[in-house]
Amino acid sequence: IFGSILGVSAGFVLGKEGPMVHTGACIANLLGQGGSRKYHLTCNWLRYFKNDRDRRDLITCGCAAGVAAAFRAPVGGVLFALEEAASWWRSALLWRAFFTTAVVAVVLRTLIEFCRSGKCGLFGQGGLIMFDLSSTVATYSSPDLLAIILLGIIGGIFGGLFNFLLDKILRIYSIINERGAPSKILLTIIVSVITSMCSYGLPWLASCTQCPEDAVEQCPTVGRSGNYKNFQCPPGYYNGMASLFFNTNDDAIRNLFSTGTATEYHMSSLFIFFVAIYCLGLVTYGIAVPSGLFIPVILAGATYGRIVGTLLGSISSLDPGLFALLGAASFLGGTMRMTVSVCVILLELTNDLQMLPLVMLVLLISKTIADSFNKGVYDQIVVMKGLPYMEAHAEPYMRHLVAGDVVTGPLITFSGVEKVGDIVTALRITGHNGFPVVDEPPLTEVPELVGLVIRSHLLVLLKGKMFMKEPVKMSGSFVMERFGAFDFAKAGSGKGLKIEDLHFTDEEMQMYVDLHAIANTSPYTVVETMSLAKAALLFRELGLRHLLVVPKTPYVRVLTLSLTIYIMCVCVFFFSRVMHFLTHYNMILYQPFPLWIVPFICKGVHR
Amino acid sequence: IFGSILGVSAGFVLGKEGPMVHTGACIANLLGQGGSRKYHLTCNWLRYFKNDRDRRDLITCGCAAGVAAAFRAPVGGVLFALEEAASWWRSALLWRAFFTTAVVAVVLRTLIEFCRSGKCGLFGQGGLIMFDLSSTVATYSSPDLLAIILLGIIGGIFGGLFNFLLDKILRIYSIINERGAPSKILLTIIVSVITSMCSYGLPWLASCTQCPEDAVEQCPTVGRSGNYKNFQCPPGYYNGMASLFFNTNDDAIRNLFSTGTATEYHMSSLFIFFVAIYCLGLVTYGIAVPSGLFIPVILAGATYGRIVGTLLGSISSLDPGLFALLGAASFLGGTMRMTVSVCVILLELTNDLQMLPLVMLVLLISKTIADSFNKGVYDQIVVMKGLPYMEAHAEPYMRHLVAGDVVTGPLITFSGVEKVGDIVTALRITGHNGFPVVDEPPLTEVPELVGLVIRSHLLVLLKGKMFMKEPVKMSGSFVMERFGAFDFAKAGSGKGLKIEDLHFTDEEMQMYVDLHAIANTSPYTVVETMSLAKAALLFRELGLRHLLVVPKTPYVRVLTLSLTIYIMCVCVFFFSRVMHFLTHYNMILYQPFPLWIVPFICKGVHR
Repeated sequence: IFGSILGVSAGFVLGKEGPMVHTGACIANLLGQGGSRKYHLTCNWLRYFKNDRDRRDLITCGCAAGVAAAFRAPVGGVLFALEEAASWWRSALLWRAFFTTAVVAVVLRTLIEFCRSGKCGLFGQGGLIMFDLSSTVATYSSPDLLAIILLGIIGGIFGGLFNFLLDKILRIYSIINERGAPSKILLTIIVSVITSMCSYGLPWLASCTQCPEDAVEQCPTVGRSGNYKNFQCPPGYYNGMASLFFNTNDDAIRNLFSTGTATEYHMSSLFIFFVAIYCLGLVTYGIAVPSGLFIPVILAGATYGRIVGTLLGSISSLDPGLFALLGAASFLGGTMRMTVSVCVILLELTNDLQMLPLVMLVLLISKTIADSFNKGVYDQIVVMKGLPYMEAHAEPYMRHLVAGDVVTGPLITFSGVEKVGDIVTALRITGHNGFPVVDEPPLTEVPELVGLVIRSHLLVLLKGKMFMKEPVKMSGSFVMERFGAFDFAKAGSGKGLKIEDLHFTDEEMQMYVDLHAIANTSPYTVVETMSLAKAALLFRELGLRHLLVVPKTPYVRVLTLSLTIYIMCVCVFFFSRVMHFLTHYNMILYQPFPLWIVPFICKGVHR
Repeated sequence: IFGSILGVSAGFVLGKEGPMVHTGACIANLLGQGGSRKYHLTCNWLRYFKNDRDRRDLITCGCAAGVAAAFRAPVGGVLFALEEAASWWRSALLWRAFFTTAVVAVVLRTLIEFCRSGKCGLFGQGGLIMFDLSSTVATYSSPDLLAIILLGIIGGIFGGLFNFLLDKILRIYSIINERGAPSKILLTIIVSVITSMCSYGLPWLASCTQCPEDAVEQCPTVGRSGNYKNFQCPPGYYNGMASLFFNTNDDAIRNLFSTGTATEYHMSSLFIFFVAIYCLGLVTYGIAVPSGLFIPVILAGATYGRIVGTLLGSISSLDPGLFALLGAASFLGGTMRMTVSVCVILLELTNDLQMLPLVMLVLLISKTIADSFNKGVYDQIVVMKGLPYMEAHAEPYMRHLVAGDVVTGPLITFSGVEKVGDIVTALRITGHNGFPVVDEPPLTEVPELVGLVIRSHLLVLLKGKMFMKEPVKMSGSFVMERFGAFDFAKAGSGKGLKIEDLHFTDEEMQMYVDLHAIANTSPYTVVETMSLAKAALLFRELGLRHLLVVPKTPYVRVLTLSLTIYIMCVCVFFFSRVMHFLTHYNMILYQPFPLWIVPFICKGVHR
């Protein structure tokens, strides 16, 4: 939070929406872990979130709240969470996210109302709509459409180029940042100096412009924000480039979007500003400052749109301010590759419903163009960070493999009543999160799959030390008498039991423990001849962590995809390729898979 | 299309958006079937839609296009399709639906522009935003919020009551309608007469009001639409109730939403109009006229909101026109139970982004209140029509059952190389769409599940008459040489091969056919001890039609849920309860399940 405030205040070309999404997700994660017992910030009812599904849902809602607060766009926030953040969705979640953002909107609105008198600096200004364009009446004809299609195509190319260059720069930065704190700080200082030099140096290149006659009162601007900055010009004159540089990013966007000001900026000023912002946006993202990409992309896109609008002024009657909006849309489509959510966010930012068809058109064109070059910027970052992410669709090569093909070893299984020593050894020597349980003779006639036990439940059971001298099956209720449901609740990250914390005597190690009561007796299974593509789809669509592979022939098998848990701030992605497999006997087991979102782990990822 | 045009023109209290959604879905289905060969409306590339998934996607897009056209709300259309219509969603579909509605928006916009000169009656009026409220500046404080919460609560109760009464009335109507065409027509005539009596009779009850001084020019209104209808009043006076009744429904809504007209309607007029519209909306839906529910609900809700706004005028400073908007939102939330899509549709209808937080609040409150009484109106209709619909979540009782518990018989299986006569008999005596294929000795050492063949593929294979004298396994490529991929493409509804169309000689019936090449060797399977709730979730989340149940113990099993294919106009729902099961040997097989949407079958369902 503080990093973001200081970064934005320092005048970096970066957005505040990335850190705000991150903040929202972090708060949600904190609540999902049941609060913090260390700082006495906990509530008894928070324990209901102590399971994977509700915690994920909560974090998705937190992400939606972050977007909603950053753009003052409640519906856009829900859609962003749907389109970009969540890899799994259900109608109850839609409704909860909507509730969250409604609360955000009401709170924001109340605070803005409270601050309208100017007590809170710039906060109270603009109301819920940051760049209000609703007063403009836009009519457009066929030449306008042609101009807009051209705008979308070039915007898509610039967006794709942005992603390409950002990828290269982030790769260089990651090498620099790995060298330690001094390198990080030096890099930040260099970018900071370059930004300052651009902001202060470039306006010297622009010539002074006479104030328009109808705006003599506000020109040149006095104060922190406004359209006309004086900057070394004589009274009655303003410097166009300074008006763009010497404002907050939000105000610069507002200036670019403003209509009826076609001659406000020199072509040369706009062009220099565009190049500067495009490059500064690229070099700023990835330094050791919490940053988002939305604002730089909108800013560069709006400048680009205004340039195109001014150039095409002869064939199109649309205002350059509206072209700026469409230019911003084309850049967003070209870099983020989102459609519905960007469209709604832009709508909520500008309140300009008349332009909706054009915004949709531009988004579609630029996304299509950019998709032919490379992937969306968030996908690229996930790939670059090496975070394991499973695409929603199966990779083509998977169609030629079956689930049995990816089976490898060694895999550890337990029998329904297992020796304590064997369990402890298995937990110590492996990092697996799930183990199949197979009843073997003499407990049953033939080997039979009981289900799956997960590491954390095993640890709780071991800690209870309900051991037996002989390998006999107990009744399930016996375990339930000893343990409550909340004993097995998912602990906060880094807080669960560890095998290193448990100690057993030699005698205990020789005893037996019944796993039937804690085994999940309904694990999802696939037959070994199942196409890997379909198994991957099952895995992804149902949000599984473990998938058992059973044989066509009598013997039971289980498959593990031991995917390193990786995370990206809000959304979590899993690489289907980063798999390593284990087998033992003839069993395999998919392992710790869709742990969607663990915002606290992703300190290094800025968005 | 014509029914809807005539119904709306006749002045019924019904919406045009239901039939438009239906129309969109029908056109999409027509294209998805590859056009109509009978009417020479076909294209070669349409054959790429001849599979289930693309056809479903296309119909979802058609539904989105219908909503987008009805409300001139492109983003709302996408969200409606997401929230209400589609039971299965993927990101590519989101993007396609968005593309469809963008095209709709551009076409609509072009047509409106073309019609602006008045050549097309009322069509060109209002532009893309039907009820423009953007000019009003709304500020609200705590008492307003209290008033709005009250509005939401009562709106939710009225919405729930609407659903309850509609359910009862539709049950009575379905009895009447079953008696044949004369009863249907008589019912329609009666409703028509009642509507006419209300429209013409009720305004006599209202007294004349003097025209406001600032609106002398437009008062009383001359022409088809307007705020002030003269109706038997002296010049300079208008009849408030006539202004509501003697307009199109759209204009009545516009009048109710209009701000700065707090004293335009008498309280008594509003009250009578509310009761009349509430009741007429209930009795009109379900008669033999294509009708939607959105407009009647918005109309009743807006009137209700205006009444509340006028009553609470002393404690709230909000304009009654804005209260009308919130009232409409509360009724929509109370009946439809959608959140995001209704919110965006209202936003796109009114262009009033300032009110967004309040609209969200009201929607949430009324939905929550109404949810405690009954289900959403569409869900109710699905239940009433007896359409089999599977909820996205498993029913609680399923948690206590395992997949094996719902296994029943008889089930028919084929071996990998099966006698033609056995296949023909099986296809003739059952209506099953899928049959498991099990290789048995001597083909393999132990019985082994090969996969699943579906009826239509079997019929194609049988028609090709590639039979053998001896039961030997052929190479797969042999079949592929005889048949192209498009031979197995899904035919249009009612156009596929039927077993009755195929004839075989006695000699052929004694021959064998190899099913290996056409069997789906990767059917999704569950173990018989899998919890039924999890099996149902698998079925629903992956959009399956068939799910095989395999035993823990060596013997292979398959489970069929023989669900009658049912459809609801656009969305398709499946009852998890309407299941009947078949078994044979020890196998079961889930049958024809998520055939989402077949609009042509649902003549009787109006929306």
